[in-house]
Amino acid sequence: MGRMFGYGDIQLFAGSASLDLAKEISDYLDIPLSEHDLVEFSNENLFVRLHGSVRGQDVYVIQSLSSPLHRNIMELLIMIDCLKRDSAGRITAVIPYMAYARSDKKDQPRVPITARLLADMIEVAGADRYMTIDLHAGQIQGFFSIPGDVLTAFHMLSDYIVKKKIEHAAVATVDLGFAKKGRNFAAKLGVPLAFVEKRRSRDDSRARATTVIGDVADRNVILVDDEVLTSGSILEAAKIVREHGARDIHLSFTHALLVPPSSQRLAEAGLREIVTTNSISIPAEKRLPNMTVLSVAPLLAEVIIRAHEGRSVGALFNE
Amino acid sequence: MGRMFGYGDIQLFAGSASLDLAKEISDYLDIPLSEHDLVEFSNENLFVRLHGSVRGQDVYVIQSLSSPLHRNIMELLIMIDCLKRDSAGRITAVIPYMAYARSDKKDQPRVPITARLLADMIEVAGADRYMTIDLHAGQIQGFFSIPGDVLTAFHMLSDYIVKKKIEHAAVATVDLGFAKKGRNFAAKLGVPLAFVEKRRSRDDSRARATTVIGDVADRNVILVDDEVLTSGSILEAAKIVREHGARDIHLSFTHALLVPPSSQRLAEAGLREIVTTNSISIPAEKRLPNMTVLSVAPLLAEVIIRAHEGRSVGALFNE
Amino acid sequence: MGRMFGYGDIQLFAGSASLDLAKEISDYLDIPLSEHDLVEFSNENLFVRLHGSVRGQDVYVIQSLSSPLHRNIMELLIMIDCLKRDSAGRITAVIPYMAYARSDKKDQPRVPITARLLADMIEVAGADRYMTIDLHAGQIQGFFSIPGDVLTAFHMLSDYIVKKKIEHAAVATVDLGFAKKGRNFAAKLGVPLAFVEKRRSRDDSRARATTVIGDVADRNVILVDDEVLTSGSILEAAKIVREHGARDIHLSFTHALLVPPSSQRLAEAGLREIVTTNSISIPAEKRLPNMTVLSVAPLLAEVIIRAHEGRSVGALFNE
Amino acid sequence: MGRMFGYGDIQLFAGSASLDLAKEISDYLDIPLSEHDLVEFSNENLFVRLHGSVRGQDVYVIQSLSSPLHRNIMELLIMIDCLKRDSAGRITAVIPYMAYARSDKKDQPRVPITARLLADMIEVAGADRYMTIDLHAGQIQGFFSIPGDVLTAFHMLSDYIVKKKIEHAAVATVDLGFAKKGRNFAAKLGVPLAFVEKRRSRDDSRARATTVIGDVADRNVILVDDEVLTSGSILEAAKIVREHGARDIHLSFTHALLVPPSSQRLAEAGLREIVTTNSISIPAEKRLPNMTVLSVAPLLAEVIIRAHEGRSVGALFNE
Amino acid sequence: MGRMFGYGDIQLFAGSASLDLAKEISDYLDIPLSEHDLVEFSNENLFVRLHGSVRGQDVYVIQSLSSPLHRNIMELLIMIDCLKRDSAGRITAVIPYMAYARSDKKDQPRVPITARLLADMIEVAGADRYMTIDLHAGQIQGFFSIPGDVLTAFHMLSDYIVKKKIEHAAVATVDLGFAKKGRNFAAKLGVPLAFVEKRRSRDDSRARATTVIGDVADRNVILVDDEVLTSGSILEAAKIVREHGARDIHLSFTHALLVPPSSQRLAEAGLREIVTTNSISIPAEKRLPNMTVLSVAPLLAEVIIRAHEGRSVGALFNE
Amino acid sequence: MGRMFGYGDIQLFAGSASLDLAKEISDYLDIPLSEHDLVEFSNENLFVRLHGSVRGQDVYVIQSLSSPLHRNIMELLIMIDCLKRDSAGRITAVIPYMAYARSDKKDQPRVPITARLLADMIEVAGADRYMTIDLHAGQIQGFFSIPGDVLTAFHMLSDYIVKKKIEHAAVATVDLGFAKKGRNFAAKLGVPLAFVEKRRSRDDSRARATTVIGDVADRNVILVDDEVLTSGSILEAAKIVREHGARDIHLSFTHALLVPPSSQRLAEAGLREIVTTNSISIPAEKRLPNMTVLSVAPLLAEVIIRAHEGRSVGALFNE
Repeated sequence: MGRMFGYGDIQLFAGSASLDLAKEISDYLDIPLSEHDLVEFSNENLFVRLHGSVRGQDVYVIQSLSSPLHRNIMELLIMIDCLKRDSAGRITAVIPYMAYARSDKKDQPRVPITARLLADMIEVAGADRYMTIDLHAGQIQGFFSIPGDVLTAFHMLSDYIVKKKIEHAAVATVDLGFAKKGRNFAAKLGVPLAFVEKRRSRDDSRARATTVIGDVADRNVILVDDEVLTSGSILEAAKIVREHGARDIHLSFTHALLVPPSSQRLAEAGLREIVTTNSISIPAEKRLPNMTVLSVAPLLAEVIIRAHEGRSVGALFNE
Repeated sequence: MGRMFGYGDIQLFAGSASLDLAKEISDYLDIPLSEHDLVEFSNENLFVRLHGSVRGQDVYVIQSLSSPLHRNIMELLIMIDCLKRDSAGRITAVIPYMAYARSDKKDQPRVPITARLLADMIEVAGADRYMTIDLHAGQIQGFFSIPGDVLTAFHMLSDYIVKKKIEHAAVATVDLGFAKKGRNFAAKLGVPLAFVEKRRSRDDSRARATTVIGDVADRNVILVDDEVLTSGSILEAAKIVREHGARDIHLSFTHALLVPPSSQRLAEAGLREIVTTNSISIPAEKRLPNMTVLSVAPLLAEVIIRAHEGRSVGALFNE
Repeated sequence: MGRMFGYGDIQLFAGSASLDLAKEISDYLDIPLSEHDLVEFSNENLFVRLHGSVRGQDVYVIQSLSSPLHRNIMELLIMIDCLKRDSAGRITAVIPYMAYARSDKKDQPRVPITARLLADMIEVAGADRYMTIDLHAGQIQGFFSIPGDVLTAFHMLSDYIVKKKIEHAAVATVDLGFAKKGRNFAAKLGVPLAFVEKRRSRDDSRARATTVIGDVADRNVILVDDEVLTSGSILEAAKIVREHGARDIHLSFTHALLVPPSSQRLAEAGLREIVTTNSISIPAEKRLPNMTVLSVAPLLAEVIIRAHEGRSVGALFNE
Repeated sequence: MGRMFGYGDIQLFAGSASLDLAKEISDYLDIPLSEHDLVEFSNENLFVRLHGSVRGQDVYVIQSLSSPLHRNIMELLIMIDCLKRDSAGRITAVIPYMAYARSDKKDQPRVPITARLLADMIEVAGADRYMTIDLHAGQIQGFFSIPGDVLTAFHMLSDYIVKKKIEHAAVATVDLGFAKKGRNFAAKLGVPLAFVEKRRSRDDSRARATTVIGDVADRNVILVDDEVLTSGSILEAAKIVREHGARDIHLSFTHALLVPPSSQRLAEAGLREIVTTNSISIPAEKRLPNMTVLSVAPLLAEVIIRAHEGRSVGALFNE
Repeated sequence: MGRMFGYGDIQLFAGSASLDLAKEISDYLDIPLSEHDLVEFSNENLFVRLHGSVRGQDVYVIQSLSSPLHRNIMELLIMIDCLKRDSAGRITAVIPYMAYARSDKKDQPRVPITARLLADMIEVAGADRYMTIDLHAGQIQGFFSIPGDVLTAFHMLSDYIVKKKIEHAAVATVDLGFAKKGRNFAAKLGVPLAFVEKRRSRDDSRARATTVIGDVADRNVILVDDEVLTSGSILEAAKIVREHGARDIHLSFTHALLVPPSSQRLAEAGLREIVTTNSISIPAEKRLPNMTVLSVAPLLAEVIIRAHEGRSVGALFNE
Repeated sequence: MGRMFGYGDIQLFAGSASLDLAKEISDYLDIPLSEHDLVEFSNENLFVRLHGSVRGQDVYVIQSLSSPLHRNIMELLIMIDCLKRDSAGRITAVIPYMAYARSDKKDQPRVPITARLLADMIEVAGADRYMTIDLHAGQIQGFFSIPGDVLTAFHMLSDYIVKKKIEHAAVATVDLGFAKKGRNFAAKLGVPLAFVEKRRSRDDSRARATTVIGDVADRNVILVDDEVLTSGSILEAAKIVREHGARDIHLSFTHALLVPPSSQRLAEAGLREIVTTNSISIPAEKRLPNMTVLSVAPLLAEVIIRAHEGRSVGALFNE
């Protein structure tokens, strides 16, 4: 056990987007969830009231920024303001899935950088630290001036695949922005790497050509990505690698947004297995028969207890 | 015409909650609305792209914080971030109706002050100024460190009532927090003032007693408030003043939230006339036959042009 | 006893405006006041020197913002700067009476919001938290971004009145801005509520009409307010409720500014009893025979010890 | 004449500590003082109301931080807040005499640095720039993060002395902290330099020995300093240089605080001439027959007009 | 010509790392460089003194963050502080090459994010805007809260290649983090894309395997990257694509750091042509016979004049 | 032993400019230095990686800002950023010698205040406190808004001189800005004070006259200053006091920058003894036979342990 620190006890609060995950973390740590009221008035205003005091405590608010997105963002911010004004000792925003991560740069003129705006909002509300998993771009850490623990489900997912002992495998990325992480995945498995490249036509900007770079013929392909939204790209990628001679196709990703018609498309895609995590709560109706959902609760719980006790997080979880 | 200032031309942007109002302001000022794309992706992420440059311009974003509330808040913040990063000369958030204004103090322990949080969010996004109408509590101005113009629909509404030449009138407030403003209303009309008081029972906190303080017998009563949400209090107030002998009952308020079953209740309440404003967009189906909606567009437009030209706002609009 | 926290021991410092109150708090907590020099040079510059170190300690500076007002504000700020630069662990500004609370909004154009300015000054000096009693407007809490405990003397004062068992009583507010708190007072006593309304003439802005709204005939009236300055309004209110048939008149308020000719007016007003607190130090010559001064020292002391030990404040003191 | 800039017209506001000086500046620039009300309520609260709008204007508030010190500080801050909230284009705090300049470092443990606190207060109130004369320590400029013009009366004072053509002169500093500036003064006049040294006894900390370092025998000595408070040091210095054989003694300094019994002491000191400035308003009763008061109004006025027009200040005024 | 804005004239300052480039920009705009002294004292302290005033002007400081790196960073910051304290109207840091861009995330525990630190340093020094070219990661824009123009040399470089009309070409990226930009390059040319993949051995972390993914046989390969440091990766990439059957090899990149033994390696690599820019000053001895250096001066100059006049930058320069 | 506080254990990190001093402090406190990698890449970018976690710890980074100056500044800032992002409990920058201290005011127009810039950079990087020795100007403390301990080597140096029992001594300052501290030195020794005055000619600004003010004839003179750079002034001062009849000349100063040709000049100056400290690391080749180097390690170590345990620093070390 770690030594005592300058903050009081751990208090865990479950945001409404992460009730199940928070419960799992609570069970893992054997620390009950702290109670609070969350009221939504008829004017949609959210209101929060803590049942007990958090003065000087080491507080963790667990809230994934999933759908309904903006309500969940505001709920998180209001919780943080409420905890700050009740003189919490330290407030950590535990955000298994960070929203707006693709609005992280101006790749065309006259657009916002909403991921930085969101980081500023979390800081101005009063968070002292944050914790998240597999940011779309690691640089988003730099949008925060407060310290944070950016964890990865990479090991959970790749260990799971390794255990499957897939013969004659190859890793393929669906998005070129994921190329480096795809390489790490392939290196962990010790298999070749390929890329699905989408390119707009020079003549017709709506027409897109999809090709495979690298060799997938006769290989069992593991498609890897960080998040899956509507599964459109996945379906397209599965089709093109199959056209290039791939055999079984597996799919691995961290954040299961799974917006309709994602489930239908994933079912159509003829995948051998889908492995993902519960960083976003996946309702029963979205859980396909060939889908395995690994829990990030032990990962988050271990980091929470280490952060509380001032022990190293890196020692256990980093690549 | 005013003299030239350090900012470029006025640019008006219409937020999706205030399209009609922004169009009215645009027409009044004879300045076309600046164009921009607003995209909502399947993951609910909002994305904004300005069609033209705002470098150095004097920009006004018009967005009421009405339903869908949190999406509208985020849209406003993203617009501001986008304008800031395109080097706008000055950004004014024109917010005819400010949300979360009732979460403006800790009247019990362990609750947030969301109105201050919202002010901080608007500032951290990059607004240089704000403009709003009839804040629930004037102190919310102090939640902002940036300058703002807090306008009032008081004159529009009371002038309208004055012109009705209602005989033997009295003003009654529905909420004791509106007592002072009710007094001003009554003073403007030169009529007596009364209060509808709601009080929780000492024995049963859910039971509430409603009484009238002051004399309304045989008087035509004008109920006044700042906003109407579900109309529950209005219905109750109309009933109790009628029980105390009131004759015709009029209703005057600024912000028409009119959440169901508000329309039904207002219809049942047997009011002679309802007068309100379009600070919040009122769809046709909520416009009752006895409802008059005054436009705040000229008010906002005049303040925008004065703010742009550096002329006094107070000279025209304050009490 | 509470558990140990991240700060060192409590240290109490008495500002020169609250020497007696600080001594009472010190006695209640059995913690001696920490010593410091306060020098006023011939150029009016204040200078502070702590006798002992406050490194890492949990420090409370007790200073009411009463007369001489601006000197006392500066003394508080200099104390905070001095404690910050000596590396205090946590600095709480205990301000039983907060000044400038009526300059809390722009109710006319081209005026300041000095209450927000004061909050910013306290924060920029280095306070980590603040503590105060019965703010004129609860929203002033939102002027601070640091956490605070806004306590109330409501229970002390109303409990005292309850024990008096005044027959056939009514509560009347002197100021319509106090209407809601007056309602709470009346509800606690289970008696009717009335209002003294002051209204400027429409024809002559200097002429004011004073009336009573609600029924006070044959009732023993308890006038309630948050602070009493020159007692002009009190005298006026006592006169008008008496004209409306009131019998005995009591007066209850938290902050006894009692600027001349307040004592004379209170003596003339023919009040049965005046009950107030020592949030502001009341010198002997201002203590009238019919005045009861309740001490806020136990209230503040209990909150200090709870804040230090991380125990709930709300559990004991809130309505 | 300079070219037009991004701000509107100059507006000059006179703080109550600098009414005469502000009037002189106004006359020099041929720009009338802007009008405002300054009210002091019976609770000592100051209240400010501008008569006209300052939207977008280039505003200068002229206020020396002289006695009554803390009231004058607060008046300045409230003026700035008021101007900021009325959307002034740029606010310059013109502070001919800056207070608390000797509380500029921790030369012993557990003391404040009030000069930095004051700079932070001026910034947090909303000043965009500041302007002052002969800071006690030039480093105080670095306490501000906003730009400032720190002017000097050095040229005015030394030019005046030069014109006197004092034969066989020497310059002597009263305070060793003024040694470098004394050297500049002596260099300008082309005369030798001497120092009055005060030293605490090693045996008795209250006993102080005063000596002269350098040669003043048979010389007409010009004592120089930045400010004169009670004149105790001056009297002492005059005495010791006379004991060391000095002939006529002149005195030159910028800021005339002249706290009693300063006038009496200066009269007793047998000085040939005293030359100072009106950076602090000097009432008639403090003006001794042998005192010459040079006006800083032209200096401030020239800098204001240059700052407004974006012309170089250094070109005219620096050493 | 553009319309006038709230700032004065453009003033251009050349940092010592970008003297030639600044001169080119000055010539292009026909605006002379503003003069200033830059002194390096024997204690290495840098000192800056502007020759003329910048009050209210629109100032651009041009300084690439190239070798000597830390001295150049500090020179830039000191210039900004100096301009701020001289009341510049607007300060734009023009940084053709941004340093520390690879320290942009924590990809292992217990490391800094120096790129964010650098952004904060530029902001705290007082820059109002920044301008740079081809950031290593676009997300670094989000490290700034001030607006910026992140330009690209992509069009200059790809247009140059297009004009070469290279037959049977392919684009290959040297770094998987450049995969997306490589795709854009290939799409612009309408040719296939390949990747050089480096992978650490699972058994020996120092051993690395390099492979080519995609087809380069018999193709003229254009290697693309954002910056070239020691050319080690380039040499390796040239070798491996040649082993995979590539014919001529071209190299295109924006930032020519060219640290020894870069020139030697580039000479050895047998490249057909090297095309780069002068974002970093390239001394004559590093300019190889087969190297073409395109100037970014017209690009920066056009953006400066558009930023000054408030015209759109995006209209001309974005993809 | 002190009582436990809200931070974890002390961790000491040695910056590359203070390796020896940090080792001495580590030995004194019997706390091993914490390990970290410091890499300098071929592009001069510095990179830091901590070997162990600092979560919640009380961390001290020891780094003098000596040559190579700007690299050492950046190394310090990167260390602080790294510690902050690893969630250190408290970060103290221990800077025995602070750079840029002479750029502490605008004594001419259009120059920077780099010492304030440096303070802001240290704060924005994330330092919670700082510690330094003998600032050139004490006011630099006020450039920081974080608390700091500014220690002095005055006692070490003057005690050393006192023990030498130098007969018929006098103290002389080399710089008039050091006049007050020179007085304190002389007072401690109970000997007279003199000044070496340098003055620019009125006719030729490059010509300078050097004189002695005060009596040094037949006295053993102790020259005192805060730092010695090239020893030019020292050589000049030694020459002039010798011309005025001084016998032995000693030299005492805190910070030994000793830039060439300092050693040669000090050797030529014919000084009896040179006493200084190791606030800056002095390599063997700069250590002259008549030079005594006192260690500041015990001083810093004692303050570190007191700061950690919350004990008074002033009690031991201040004048």
